[in-house]
Amino acid sequence: MIRRGFTSPAVPGPVARRPVIGVIGGQRPPPKATEDAEAVGRLVAQAGAVLVCGGLGGVMEAACRGAKSAGGLTIGILPGGDRIEANPFVDVAVVTGMGTARNVIVVRTADALVAVDGSFGTLSEIAHALDQGKRVVSLSSWDLSALGVDPTRILAAKSPEEAVRLALAEAARG
Amino acid sequence: MIRRGFTSPAVPGPVARRPVIGVIGGQRPPPKATEDAEAVGRLVAQAGAVLVCGGLGGVMEAACRGAKSAGGLTIGILPGGDRIEANPFVDVAVVTGMGTARNVIVVRTADALVAVDGSFGTLSEIAHALDQGKRVVSLSSWDLSALGVDPTRILAAKSPEEAVRLALAEAARG
Amino acid sequence: MIRRGFTSPAVPGPVARRPVIGVIGGQRPPPKATEDAEAVGRLVAQAGAVLVCGGLGGVMEAACRGAKSAGGLTIGILPGGDRIEANPFVDVAVVTGMGTARNVIVVRTADALVAVDGSFGTLSEIAHALDQGKRVVSLSSWDLSALGVDPTRILAAKSPEEAVRLALAEAARG
Amino acid sequence: MIRRGFTSPAVPGPVARRPVIGVIGGQRPPPKATEDAEAVGRLVAQAGAVLVCGGLGGVMEAACRGAKSAGGLTIGILPGGDRIEANPFVDVAVVTGMGTARNVIVVRTADALVAVDGSFGTLSEIAHALDQGKRVVSLSSWDLSALGVDPTRILAAKSPEEAVRLALAEAARG
Repeated sequence: MIRRGFTSPAVPGPVARRPVIGVIGGQRPPPKATEDAEAVGRLVAQAGAVLVCGGLGGVMEAACRGAKSAGGLTIGILPGGDRIEANPFVDVAVVTGMGTARNVIVVRTADALVAVDGSFGTLSEIAHALDQGKRVVSLSSWDLSALGVDPTRILAAKSPEEAVRLALAEAARG
Repeated sequence: MIRRGFTSPAVPGPVARRPVIGVIGGQRPPPKATEDAEAVGRLVAQAGAVLVCGGLGGVMEAACRGAKSAGGLTIGILPGGDRIEANPFVDVAVVTGMGTARNVIVVRTADALVAVDGSFGTLSEIAHALDQGKRVVSLSSWDLSALGVDPTRILAAKSPEEAVRLALAEAARG
Repeated sequence: MIRRGFTSPAVPGPVARRPVIGVIGGQRPPPKATEDAEAVGRLVAQAGAVLVCGGLGGVMEAACRGAKSAGGLTIGILPGGDRIEANPFVDVAVVTGMGTARNVIVVRTADALVAVDGSFGTLSEIAHALDQGKRVVSLSSWDLSALGVDPTRILAAKSPEEAVRLALAEAARG
Repeated sequence: MIRRGFTSPAVPGPVARRPVIGVIGGQRPPPKATEDAEAVGRLVAQAGAVLVCGGLGGVMEAACRGAKSAGGLTIGILPGGDRIEANPFVDVAVVTGMGTARNVIVVRTADALVAVDGSFGTLSEIAHALDQGKRVVSLSSWDLSALGVDPTRILAAKSPEEAVRLALAEAARG
């Protein structure tokens, strides 16, 4: 007799968990930040990690575009109530309808975060990350060392390559 | 000279958006509901749709297991603050830390919902779906016709096959 | 010498906690429900309890108006991002910007809930209350006994007086 | 004939809206910040404004204690799911169960914010406020001028009196 169940060959084993890298940043980045965000997204995907972001334009869109150019998986956690606001490179739009409270979800969902450029929304995400005990990699984003924040909490990266390397190391550590 | 940029052939076109089917239901389902949820998950994946759920055990876990048995993509939107609470068949855990307010996110994220068994948490999700103008497919879950709810708002399905067929049609319509 | 500080006689003792009664219901109630909601609000205030609701029109506005006619305190937990959407009888508008996820906050904040009329949003609140182990008093609102829900979980009241009496007893029990 | 209804003399006019001042800050403040927060709370209450905060200990508790010493109204917007975590000087505990996503609600609810001391949670609230176009009064809290933030966005105050004066002016402006 063959029974379907946990021991059946058709039943899958647990999913091999892929690291989740969050990319945060503003909606109107300068050209250099757009290029950087795209490179970050591509490198995240090439490393086999999932990219999570706020799902809108600017840095978020560039990162998703980069990830898709390398065949990656992109998750956009949207503030509004309609998936239509997602940028065209989001694979799965998580529709929160919760406004900027969704920033907290982006931070909680990511194993490690890369900030590229960005304004006050990005600063809120960095602060939530630090509040949750997570490190953030900063690529031309907020530098809180001038405020006395321990520089091992915000890791300054000089290139997309370094940023993704640091983020993956952080995700592996977590 | 070849330059990387927006016009480069390497730059991807927009993502072909896959339907997102939500599966909702309780954490302690009877055996029949567990089997049904697993079949629903498998059929969702076979249709090329993404499965979203609350990420925990019971119906949620069975649906994810079914989806993974067919190579699908599973998203678990967790109530707590740690991805460790996700069932082992969740590909991407969205960590909300928002308790049962995450029920609203599950509903908003799904193009269509299939309810399997379930208790008051599931009822809250059905109510949020109806409140948002979404139809719900019920497979041995809450039957609100006794309350005078228009039966075209909650579609009763007799089998996992019918449930997924109805949900996909609903998603296509949306 | 007089010093300001923890030992000063001016320092208050702990606040005597007042019961918090939630009133839930729809935005377009029939006249009878509007009258009932107003009476519920007035009786809640006369009992010295705080009234919490979703802060918008219809049943919510009527309940707040009733509470203010008796000098009560009204808290409106708004779905949108601007206090301007609060009805004119809300003393303190809690501005969530989280859409209908605020329904969950209304339910968690209340010690006991009175439902008056109402549609799917109200049903979602009743379901969240039951999910959190809270009882709900129903005054011409959803009657879930037809679904097999234990009638001691949803207490049917025949009048505003009975509804508020049951809710206050429930709040005292909690 | 006397009839109860919309035209009855007993029906109240719209509530005169009181300003809502948010006080944000850490749970383990130094003694000076505790004293300052208490003075801020007292002055807020003496001005007839409502005090809103995160409802927990430290700066939040000191501010509530100060407000209650002057007979004010205090609203605590709690991260957890049980009102028991509110400090003893909270009149109305808004129970979110949404973790630090409640920081966003504190910010949206306040017409103006006074930050006293504080760590990363407070920084997240300041960032959300700036992101929402609100100014913040800082009393020995984060000074973002070192990051190039426009000093008219974060107003440095030298005393509780100056802080509350600036916050009330900001609330009146809003």
